[in-house]
This record gives sequence, structure tokens and C-alpha cells, in this order.
Amino acid sequence: MSGVWGNNIKYSIFGESHGKAIGITIDGIPAGIEIDLEHIKFEMSRRAPGKNQFSTERKEKDSFEILSGYFNGNTTGTPLCAIIRNKDEHSKDYYKIKSIIRPGHADYTGNVKYFGFNDYRGGGHFSGRLTAPLVFAGAIAKQILMKKNIIIGSHIYEIGNVQDEEFDKVNIKSDFLKSLINREFPVINEEKALEMKKKILEAKQDLDSIGGIVEAAVLNLPAGLGSPFFDSIESSLAHILFSIPAVKGVEFGEGFNISRMKGSQANDEFYMEEDNVHTFTNNNGGILGGITTGMPLIFRAAFKPTPSIGKIQKTVDLLKKENTEIQVTGRHDPCIVPRAVPVVEAVTAMTILDFIRGK
Amino acid sequence: MSGVWGNNIKYSIFGESHGKAIGITIDGIPAGIEIDLEHIKFEMSRRAPGKNQFSTERKEKDSFEILSGYFNGNTTGTPLCAIIRNKDEHSKDYYKIKSIIRPGHADYTGNVKYFGFNDYRGGGHFSGRLTAPLVFAGAIAKQILMKKNIIIGSHIYEIGNVQDEEFDKVNIKSDFLKSLINREFPVINEEKALEMKKKILEAKQDLDSIGGIVEAAVLNLPAGLGSPFFDSIESSLAHILFSIPAVKGVEFGEGFNISRMKGSQANDEFYMEEDNVHTFTNNNGGILGGITTGMPLIFRAAFKPTPSIGKIQKTVDLLKKENTEIQVTGRHDPCIVPRAVPVVEAVTAMTILDFIRGK
Amino acid sequence: MSGVWGNNIKYSIFGESHGKAIGITIDGIPAGIEIDLEHIKFEMSRRAPGKNQFSTERKEKDSFEILSGYFNGNTTGTPLCAIIRNKDEHSKDYYKIKSIIRPGHADYTGNVKYFGFNDYRGGGHFSGRLTAPLVFAGAIAKQILMKKNIIIGSHIYEIGNVQDEEFDKVNIKSDFLKSLINREFPVINEEKALEMKKKILEAKQDLDSIGGIVEAAVLNLPAGLGSPFFDSIESSLAHILFSIPAVKGVEFGEGFNISRMKGSQANDEFYMEEDNVHTFTNNNGGILGGITTGMPLIFRAAFKPTPSIGKIQKTVDLLKKENTEIQVTGRHDPCIVPRAVPVVEAVTAMTILDFIRGK
Amino acid sequence: MSGVWGNNIKYSIFGESHGKAIGITIDGIPAGIEIDLEHIKFEMSRRAPGKNQFSTERKEKDSFEILSGYFNGNTTGTPLCAIIRNKDEHSKDYYKIKSIIRPGHADYTGNVKYFGFNDYRGGGHFSGRLTAPLVFAGAIAKQILMKKNIIIGSHIYEIGNVQDEEFDKVNIKSDFLKSLINREFPVINEEKALEMKKKILEAKQDLDSIGGIVEAAVLNLPAGLGSPFFDSIESSLAHILFSIPAVKGVEFGEGFNISRMKGSQANDEFYMEEDNVHTFTNNNGGILGGITTGMPLIFRAAFKPTPSIGKIQKTVDLLKKENTEIQVTGRHDPCIVPRAVPVVEAVTAMTILDFIRGK
Repeated sequence: MSGVWGNNIKYSIFGESHGKAIGITIDGIPAGIEIDLEHIKFEMSRRAPGKNQFSTERKEKDSFEILSGYFNGNTTGTPLCAIIRNKDEHSKDYYKIKSIIRPGHADYTGNVKYFGFNDYRGGGHFSGRLTAPLVFAGAIAKQILMKKNIIIGSHIYEIGNVQDEEFDKVNIKSDFLKSLINREFPVINEEKALEMKKKILEAKQDLDSIGGIVEAAVLNLPAGLGSPFFDSIESSLAHILFSIPAVKGVEFGEGFNISRMKGSQANDEFYMEEDNVHTFTNNNGGILGGITTGMPLIFRAAFKPTPSIGKIQKTVDLLKKENTEIQVTGRHDPCIVPRAVPVVEAVTAMTILDFIRGK
Repeated sequence: MSGVWGNNIKYSIFGESHGKAIGITIDGIPAGIEIDLEHIKFEMSRRAPGKNQFSTERKEKDSFEILSGYFNGNTTGTPLCAIIRNKDEHSKDYYKIKSIIRPGHADYTGNVKYFGFNDYRGGGHFSGRLTAPLVFAGAIAKQILMKKNIIIGSHIYEIGNVQDEEFDKVNIKSDFLKSLINREFPVINEEKALEMKKKILEAKQDLDSIGGIVEAAVLNLPAGLGSPFFDSIESSLAHILFSIPAVKGVEFGEGFNISRMKGSQANDEFYMEEDNVHTFTNNNGGILGGITTGMPLIFRAAFKPTPSIGKIQKTVDLLKKENTEIQVTGRHDPCIVPRAVPVVEAVTAMTILDFIRGK
Repeated sequence: MSGVWGNNIKYSIFGESHGKAIGITIDGIPAGIEIDLEHIKFEMSRRAPGKNQFSTERKEKDSFEILSGYFNGNTTGTPLCAIIRNKDEHSKDYYKIKSIIRPGHADYTGNVKYFGFNDYRGGGHFSGRLTAPLVFAGAIAKQILMKKNIIIGSHIYEIGNVQDEEFDKVNIKSDFLKSLINREFPVINEEKALEMKKKILEAKQDLDSIGGIVEAAVLNLPAGLGSPFFDSIESSLAHILFSIPAVKGVEFGEGFNISRMKGSQANDEFYMEEDNVHTFTNNNGGILGGITTGMPLIFRAAFKPTPSIGKIQKTVDLLKKENTEIQVTGRHDPCIVPRAVPVVEAVTAMTILDFIRGK
Repeated sequence: MSGVWGNNIKYSIFGESHGKAIGITIDGIPAGIEIDLEHIKFEMSRRAPGKNQFSTERKEKDSFEILSGYFNGNTTGTPLCAIIRNKDEHSKDYYKIKSIIRPGHADYTGNVKYFGFNDYRGGGHFSGRLTAPLVFAGAIAKQILMKKNIIIGSHIYEIGNVQDEEFDKVNIKSDFLKSLINREFPVINEEKALEMKKKILEAKQDLDSIGGIVEAAVLNLPAGLGSPFFDSIESSLAHILFSIPAVKGVEFGEGFNISRMKGSQANDEFYMEEDNVHTFTNNNGGILGGITTGMPLIFRAAFKPTPSIGKIQKTVDLLKKENTEIQVTGRHDPCIVPRAVPVVEAVTAMTILDFIRGK
């Protein structure tokens, strides 16, 4: 299976890139939540392609239709299903690559797993387009969390070896985090944005692509959320982050860097202020023993470069059973990272809401 | 909840470090598997403390007793439960730190989550000791996988900033991988082992600790294992890897490095040889679209330094509600990484078996 | 939660009676199954209202649209979602009963559970209309099972105290079982059908309703399907049968009658014929220890009379907080049992397929 | 799989009748619950065999040992595991029937499912002895529910065709329900108890066995517990009731009888008293749309006669592949119903607690 996730809320996704529709059912959402449809549209527009020269020129308006679980402007508490019809298909671009598998894509593994019956057009069910329903669900989750003052935000930490500043793990201002959400190309140091964009355009010109890293933060989480072992915050968040196509690495707090520290550096020492417990540092990213400490939750997700590139690559024709070459045509993102930012936030919101519901 | 994991096999762990016993129930194991008890003991001895100067001097023999699901030398197919009695407790060492929380540990978060009712002795349920049942389950999983020629092995990739060579992602020999399992301190470049050990002893002398990275590989997996999205190999493996205490980062294939490559470098080009599909490189670590390609599955897990250190640290007394200091006494590992190696392999075996059972 | 079910296949339902659409997502269906759309339509027409004088006059064509998981006439192996648009709504009939709760319905419990935010129109998510997506999923499951020669059929065992003959539990002919599926009013003894229909029309004329019992059988199941305890065939089938609105009793084999037998009568003695094990009798309904014996699987489900009746009933106005009366108008089934027959078969097929997939 | 159950609490059972131990792990129990060990022992003694002439003479003291999740007299909130060692084994009695399968038992289906590797001694994992851990878990659940004033009780409704009075579904007094728990042979009409006992002794003398029906009630449940469809109270309770060995029928409220009523009789009319909603009747057993109404929850479970009987029965030798006869020796219950009473209550408590935790 592939498409159902969550303990206290069940999120079920479905759809293929060039099929009739993609969508998601959210089961376990609280009743009586007033939904801001404009906010959902805004979040979905952040992910939508075709906005500028840094992403694919495909235009997908991604209009969603809520089919159930929504009545008189509020959630009903019963399963909420929303679908997004597929329109701008251009299937012709893809028809050639039925048997000629694209390197870096799931064409080969999908073919093996589904005995060749999977819808291969545009990546089918493996397409990054399936993240649109995740952003839909994440937008609703964000709205519910916002009422509890829980804020989720993120920035592009790295693209094409250009690094932005990192979050101040101890002290992130709510207003600052919120402001990132409104930026088309969210970075902390705007100069780095220019450099990153330049790298993207260079890759585009070379018929190549580049990857990058997203850093995310969650503010105002209560301490005590999560469990030791299999329902740890880290386990659950990593689980869904690695479900985002192209993610190949996830780290919490100082992550791989913390493995290079001494215990005396890595340990976040505690102090008490007005009966509240804080830590001086936050190398553990707001999580100890799989459970939130109340400090900002911080993590990073590494995205590989878009596998669809115009350069000639060696590959295999599965039907003819012979070696061949491929040049992936069609309109593709030279760098997926800017469009991945709202997706990372969405799955984070989905996960946090699941934990909050189970509390 | 915390203690049940798996889709097609349910692994349920229980126990506290200084309680009566720890254990695991494995539900969904195939019937009629002849179990090699000596192999289980061997795997558990790899994790056991007290073996040498590089780990804690606590001696835990970790003798397991199989209570069910095992009859006439074979698995019965019904739930297999095994327990490990706790013996060498030395609870005195820990009694002081009931209200004085240890930095880097789950003392604080456990206290908040369980309203102070959790067994705090020796970390209680949060203790690394709970990985012993995982190694037990992993040993059985390894035996079953071995019959399908699926081999899991790993090495210490980094300790205290000293880096071993990395696996040749395209071409790992089975015999070489198996040989690593028999080494007390498994590295590829033995000279690096000496340097790492030196670093561990230095940290020990300083009443400090260090962390590191484990790199693991799985050979001879069939192509087509795993699913897109929520049951991807990466999602599931990362889920359970982050359940191991002290893991703060996980990456597959080139992981964070792949985000710094160009698409033309990162994409693993395909070729066909005797009707089998291979890739020239393996930057994706044997996984595309969440599904195995048939190439070696490769990943890394980053461990933070052991939080128990003898140095004085600032902390909080939760009862007195005041700031204070702590010096963690008792016998602790200056570096947990060598003992974490069999745990990483164990949870990998548990995960792969779960996927194989669901195929 | 309410809407996700299954171990090896996840069935997720959504929708409200008078919302935009109802539907189901089936995740875990095998790839490469050729789907007979006409057979699905046929099964859905069996459940559809408005066919004759014995059911409600509401006409719902129940045209389904497959949105995903279906490509070139075959299942893709990825989540298959189908929706059914709601058309013939007549919401006016229901508007009055927002605060005046209907006896025997979920108006009150739904109001309490969802704090009054549930879509109450036509029963909302609680509506029997939600069984249409179940019939859709069941039709696909039936098609897959049919390829393994597993046949599911049922008849109206009782309506208004008129009892049909019961299945010969030891020896049901496949052709006979299949023939029942094509009957509009499936009974074994056709004379009983006339009596039952008379009872239904009498109840209709009295502005009242009646209930009944459906008896179902599954032929050609392999022995060894199911598990002891929590995944027993009986547990799983009863689980989903009790999810069908109006079911208040479920029994397997001789069911409540077996509790009145002696062990020497109740035990199904074994015999061997051509190396196959059979039982002389089948009082256990083809299940021992939660696992199929290979004999016909037989069970019964009891349906209460339709709670919507035209007679005046005492009830409560939740808004005015006072006692009042209600006369349920609108077009309702005087007896739901004939339309429940395909629903019972559908959930049975869904369950058996789930077990087959997990084998 | 077989041994893990629950949504918000995971109950994992393990063990075989003649293996080393049987047990259960409860994951998700709230922290800080003071446990009354004497009450657990009392509940387990209600189920224990060897008490009187109406049950088997096997003596199993069923002493439990709590291994984890329990500290300083309270639950810790982490998985609570308890085991019961097997002592009075008398395996000799069973050794003969390895290949000669007992009618009415799971010997045949267990053999097929587990390819002959299951522990067949005394029924192995299929043994009614596995209900002892359920009673343990149920006792803890009862204690937690009791603090919320939720009371679970039951009586023997029928044995050997002798029927007790049924519960007054509208008005069951708490004290009366509690008093039933203290009776060794709980019936409402004591004269019926004498008749039932006589029937049991007659069956015993005839080397035969008889079955019966247990009726249970839950008082003081809040309205609004449960969900429509797959997590309905009826679905969940029936699921676990059918997991109890020998249960072949389950009905809620009037159950099969309600299918013989008219809607005007069956519908429970509402009335309001001091702003609380009640029903005049309770034919639906306190559940509408799968959700509790706040009225008493009432259901019945039908048990088949114990399949182990001393009479000669026809059967099959699986090894010799020939027809043969069997006379089940050993000490068996002529009627399992009196010992099943606390088991029915236990699984009910486990289920209700699961729903309460998910609220």
C-alpha cells in the first residue's frame, strides 16, 4: 500500500499526474472548524508550477473541489475529501517514454512493482503533482494549529551549494517565521536568494537541474508531544518527509553535525524561568526522547536535483530489452526546492495535527 | 503510544531499564522457520555493554527467554515473545536524578508526558537498553532474510570527526559485508579504527562523550519492494531508525550530498546486462520512488554523543523548581556508536522482513 | 475516525447523503486486474433505490466515476478512487428535522458527537446511501475473487417473520448461488417471496416499516484463511457487517442455535475423501478457530426495520429543548432488506479479498 | 497476524496453552493510574478453572507477573506487559492428538494455516487459556472506567435451553449490576441457575457438553462515543467478542428480535428530562449510528458447546491420511459459559477504554 497515513487522523491520497483527478481524504479532523478557503488557495498557489522562470512553465491552476466533510463553512467531523482535476496534460510529451525509463525517476521501479500496469504518463502516481493534495491537507492542518498559536514556517537553506543563514534555533520570532510564508523565494539572507536564483537559471540553460535543502521550524509546541520509540516526533516526521518525492536526507536540530560534537557541547543545558523550563541551546531541535521539549522544533530535508533533464542520458528500453539513450523533453523544474517549501510545511502540519489529536 | 510497529509484522516492545524485564513480541512471523539460537546470542553480544574499554563497564548478559511462538526448534507462526530479565541494576547510582533532569536525556520530556509517573531509573523506557529486544527481533529477521540471500551489514562511518572510507555503493561484495559483522569494531579502513578508538578514550578521560555515523548496506534485495509515498522504503526505514535513541539524522544513498549535485551527476543511468537492469552509479542508494531498484540499499544514520557525561552541567530541579547543576555518575558509554551498529542492522532487518512479508 | 478499514487493503469511504459526492478509495488492490464496468453497474443497480414498489421511490442512478488507479482498462495497483455525485436531493423534505431528532436514527448521536456540525440532511454521513461506495468496492473485489473461483451469494432469509428456507450448509451448488445474484428478490423458496412482499406492502400502507435477515455464503474458499483471535474471519466479517447501517445481529453457521446444541451435535465431524478433509455437517459455518475450513462460509445478518416511518412518534427538539412529535416525511424504504442483500455481499467480498491479499 | 488489537490502546497477546507463558502487552494506557492488584486477581479467579464441578478440574492458579509499565504502584504510561506462567500442563493427555484432529477445534485449521508447525498441545495458541491475559487487561480497563463511574456487568442468559430473565434494558441499577460480578454463577433468576447447573451436570455425565448465551450491560457511558461505519461501537465490540474462542453469534439490543419488529415498535422514542435526552425503550441497546446514546449498552454473545467431549467422534488422521475416531480425554469444561462471563466483561472493558482514550 502507499496512500494512507496517520494514527489519529487518517490521510488517504489518490491519483495520477495525467489521470482524471488527484485528491485526498482526511478522516479524523475535528468537527466545527471554520475553514478559510482563501488560505488553502494561497498555500496551493505557493506550490503551483508556472509562476516564474525558476519553475516549470506548466500551468496547473490546481483548483480544488471539496466533496464531503464540509457543511455551512465548517468541518463536519466526518471524512473530508477534496479533489483536484487534471487539466493541462500535454500527454504527448510523455508517450515516448513508456518503455524507455528515465534515470532518477520511478519509471523502472514502478514498472517492476506494478508489472507494467501503472499509469506512466507524467510519472503517474509517483508524480510530484501528488504533493498538491498534501498541501491542501496541510493548509487545513495549519489553520487548526494556528488557532492553538502553533506556527510552521520554513526557508530555502541551500540551493546549488549556496547556503542561506540557518535558523536561530533558540530564538525564532513568530512574526519573522510568518513573514517567510509570504515570500515567493523564502530565504533569511536575501543576497543568497540572488545567488541561488542565478544557479537555477544556469542549470536551466545547461538543460540540467540542481537540488537543495529546506529548513523548517515549528513554534509554540507544547512540551510532551510525541512518544518514545515508534511514535517519536522524529520517526513520524521523517516518515512523511521521506514520502515527498526527491527527499534523500532528513536531520533534526544539528543533525549530522551533532554527531561531530562532544557531549558537553551537544547537550542542551536546562534553565528555569518563571517556572518554565528552557534550554540555552537547541542542538536537539526541540526533541528529546522523541518528545517535544517546548523549544522550537527544527529540522532539514535534503532534495535531490530534479531527475527530468534535457541532457542526453544512458538508459534502457524495457520492451526492446536493449541499451539506449534518453533526452527528457517536456517542461520541467530546473530546481524543485522553491516549490517544495510549502510541501515540507504541509506534511509537518499534517503530522503535528495528528499528534495533537492523539494527545 | 510508542511500542508497536510494522505493517505486515507487528513488533511490540516493552520494558524499562531497571524494571523486571524488557522484551518484544513479534506477530506475523512465518511458521516453520528453524531458529538458530546461537546466532541470536551472537547478535545480542555485539550490542551488549561491558565488553571492552570503549563502552560502559556495566555488564548485562542479556540472556533472553523465548516465552511463546517457538516449538520444537521452529517458529509456530503465532506471536513470538521473548523477554530479557534486568539484573545488574545499581539503581543507587540513579536515585538522585529523579527531580534533577539530565541534559540531552528524556528525563524532562518523559516527566512532562507521563506527569512524573514514568520509571526514571536508568532512563526507564527511554533507555538504550530497550534496543536489546530490537536486536533479538532483528536477529530472527536476519535469519529469515539470509535464507533469501538478503544480507545486511554495516560499518562505523565516522566517530569523533574521523571518517572511514565509504561503501562502494555499486559493488559491495557479500563476503566482505558478512565479514564486517564479525568485527568487534567494524570499519573498512582499519587504520581509521585506531584513530577512532583514540578519540573515544580521550573523551572518556575528559568525562565527556562523542558521537558518530553508521553506514549500512543491504544486498540482493529484489527490485520492486516498497511503495510510493507513505510506505516507501525510505519512509519506513527512517521511521524506525529515528526510533533508535540518539539518532538525529538519516540519509539514503548520497543523501545530503546529492542535494549539492547536478541532475546529470545525480541521476543513476541505467544499463542492461543479460536482461537485468542495473545502474552505473548508485547515488540514490538503491531506491527510486520509494521502491528498491535491485542495486545495494545504502543509508547512513547519525548518532549524537552519549548525553550521560561526568562533566558538570547546568540544569533544573523540577521539584524544587530551581536552577542547579548535575554531574552524571554511573557507568556510561563514552561513545554509543560501536554498540549501535548491530541495532541499526537489526531495525533494518525488521523493516525489510516486514516489506517481504507484505509482498 | 470512521472511514478507513482493512489490513492488507485499505478502503476509505467519504461523503454525505446530500453533499456533493460520496465515494471510496481502495488502496492495495493488485495491479493488472481487468475491470468489468458493466458488472459494477449491475451490482450498483441491485442496491439502487426507486426500482419497484418495495423500496423508496427516490431515484438515484448512482453513476460512478473512477478518478484514479485505473488505466487502459486495468487496475494500476495504486489507490483507486471512485465517486458518485449526489443528484436527486429533495433537501426540502429534511430541513425541518434539524433540531427535531428522528427516533431510531443517528440524528441525536451524530449531533452529540459532532457538536451539531454534522451535515444532517438525509442522514448525512450516516445515510444508508454510503453503502453505494461499498457496493462499488465489493463489485471489484468480487471480480478479483471470481478469478479464483470464490463465489459470494446471499438470499433474504427472513422478512416480517416470514422465513425462507435456509442454505444447505454442507452442499451449496455454485450455479445455484450465482443464480441468486440475478434475482430481484432473492429467496430460495419463491412462495415465501410472495408472502414477504405482501408484508412489505402492508407495512408501507400502514406508514410503518419492517426488518429482516440476510443469509450469505462464500464458496470455494481455501482452508487456512484467517487467524486466531483479533484477525479471525468472524471478527473481521462481523466488524464490517455491523458497519452497515441497521445491522443489529450477526451469527456464523448455526450461530445462536449452536448455543442450544450439545457438543456431540454441534461438532462437525471430519472425514477424508481423496486426500481432502471435509466435515459431515457445517454447524460452524466453515470457520474453526477463526480460520476457514474449506467448507462453505455461512453467516446471517439481522437488519432492524427502517427507522424512517410516516407514523407519529414522540421525540425531542434539541434547540427548543422540549418534548415534541415527529412524522418523518420524504420517500423511504418500507423494508431495507432487499436493497441490503448486495451490500452484505459487497462487504463480504471486501473482507475476503483483504484476507486473500494478506496470505 | 492475530495478536494486536485496538486503535488508541494496542493490546498484544501471546502464548500457547502448554508453552512457557502466556501474556499481554498494553500500550497506550494512561500514566498515573493506581492499580488494585487484588481486583485483578479477583477477576482472574472468576475465569480460572478448577473451582467447582461445573468446570474443568484442571487447576491453573493463573498468577500473573507484571514485567513493565508499572512503577511505585502506578501505571507509567509506557507499555505494560504481564505474563502468566504455564504450570499444570499434563501434556501427556494431548500428545496423541497431534495428527488426529478434534472435531469443533482448530486442530485442522491451525495445521493448515501454520503448515503443521503450530504448538498443538492443549490447543496451543488457539486455547481458551489465552483469555486469561484478556481478563488481566480487562481488569485494568475496568478499574480505569470505574473511576469514570462506567460499570460493566453481565449474567448467564441461557445455558442448555434454560433461559434466565433478560436485563431491563431501560433501567438497570448500578448496584444490581455490580452485585452480579460477585456471584459465582451470575443469573438474574436464581431458580434458573439451579436448572442450568443440572443441565451442565447431565452433559458432564453423558461425556457431552452444552453451550449458552451471555448478556452484558455497560452503564453510565457518555453519549457520543463511537463513530459511524468502521469504528462503530457495534463493529468494535463484535470484532473482539468474536475473537473469544467459541463465540458464534453477537447481537445488540433486541438483536435478531428487532428484525422481527415493526419500525413503530423498534424505534426508541426520545424524551427530555432536565435537559437530558433519554429513550422510553432501548431496543437499539444504547447505540444509534454506531454511537452511544447514553442509555445502557446491552448485547449478547452466543457460545457453542465445548468441543472437547468424551464421546467417540468420527475424524481424520492427518498423517496417516485416513478416516478414524477420537475420544477426547483430559479434563474439560462441560460448559464454558460460566467461565466466559468475566471474559466477555473484560473485552468489553478493553474496547470501551479504547474508545474513551480516543475521545
